Amino acid sequence: MAYKEEYPSRLLSDAVEAISSLPGVGRRSALRLALHLLRQPVENVHHFTEAVNRLRDGVQYCRTCSMISDTEQCAICSDSKRDHGIICVVESVRDVMSIEATGQFNGVYHVLGGIISPIAGVGPSDLTISALEERVKGGGCREVILALDGDVEGETTAFYIYRRLQPFGVTLTSLARGLGFGDSLEYADSLTLGRSIVNRQIFKV
Amino acid sequence: MAYKEEYPSRLLSDAVEAISSLPGVGRRSALRLALHLLRQPVENVHHFTEAVNRLRDGVQYCRTCSMISDTEQCAICSDSKRDHGIICVVESVRDVMSIEATGQFNGVYHVLGGIISPIAGVGPSDLTISALEERVKGGGCREVILALDGDVEGETTAFYIYRRLQPFGVTLTSLARGLGFGDSLEYADSLTLGRSIVNRQIFKV
Repeated sequence: MAYKEEYPSRLLSDAVEAISSLPGVGRRSALRLALHLLRQPVENVHHFTEAVNRLRDGVQYCRTCSMISDTEQCAICSDSKRDHGIICVVESVRDVMSIEATGQFNGVYHVLGGIISPIAGVGPSDLTISALEERVKGGGCREVILALDGDVEGETTAFYIYRRLQPFGVTLTSLARGLGFGDSLEYADSLTLGRSIVNRQIFKV
Repeated sequence: MAYKEEYPSRLLSDAVEAISSLPGVGRRSALRLALHLLRQPVENVHHFTEAVNRLRDGVQYCRTCSMISDTEQCAICSDSKRDHGIICVVESVRDVMSIEATGQFNGVYHVLGGIISPIAGVGPSDLTISALEERVKGGGCREVILALDGDVEGETTAFYIYRRLQPFGVTLTSLARGLGFGDSLEYADSLTLGRSIVNRQIFKV
């Protein structure tokens, strides 16, 4: 049969297929990336695939907070200068990185590894909630910050954790909600604007 | 030292570094992709990296036209139903795929593997121009289509090849330039519009 395939080579077609399985990468971009990789020296391509394999094969999670770590206990949990009495509960590794980037938090974290979502089939037992309960039960924790998204699933998960931790007498807090810095009132949604009036703060100069 | 690195893990940082070396992928997208790969089953990630490695390690180029191929001679060059008397010269593998997708060309190709560009340090000897000359010299070719980009480098390359092939008495053609189908005169650049008037064609109904 003549050349009527979409791709001139099975190897190319397989690579495009694999690359386009990445989120946000369509078949056109995947082809562009595959042809780019073909133009690179072999060792660069091997360096790329090895870095990806090493990440997936070698990844460890902190035994305390479930953050990605190169060691059994992550750098934050091993840091005696941090306040181990405040645990900030987040959905994902990326949230820890975002909060760390603000430089405003000196406590420790607990990564849930997801959010409760009946639609996606994720229940409490798929997350690290029992480990969080054990941490709190273990003592030494004064406050748990529920730093979850403001959507239905985030609120549901926060409420569930609130119920689980309430018996242990720790303070449970959530992130302040309100207008973003620099936001204009005109464009704020009414729920956010309403909450920011109810939770108004003393004006400081 | 405490956790003050941008990434919580060396493995993650290496993977982000490697992924962001791809064209059009910034560090933010690379982090998103790396964290996505972490959530995938190990075998999916290996499947991905193996497909990339196999492509780069196993890629072959047609000995006649330099197109990517799984065999020594590509499917187009081995196809006796195609017109081997017309060679369409293109810059890249992708151009062959684009022209094949039109279904309008039944000749064969010659992939240059780049374009002459003094700024990028690409000269004629870096391309497959000598192989093209040998093909034409070998006989059996009536026409060479110079299907290169309309920019300075494309024009320069086309002119250079024109000079090299002129002695062999083949017809040298280039792609028709003019308004795109559906284009409005109002938004056409004046060079394109000017050329499309000069090269106007008999109106056919």
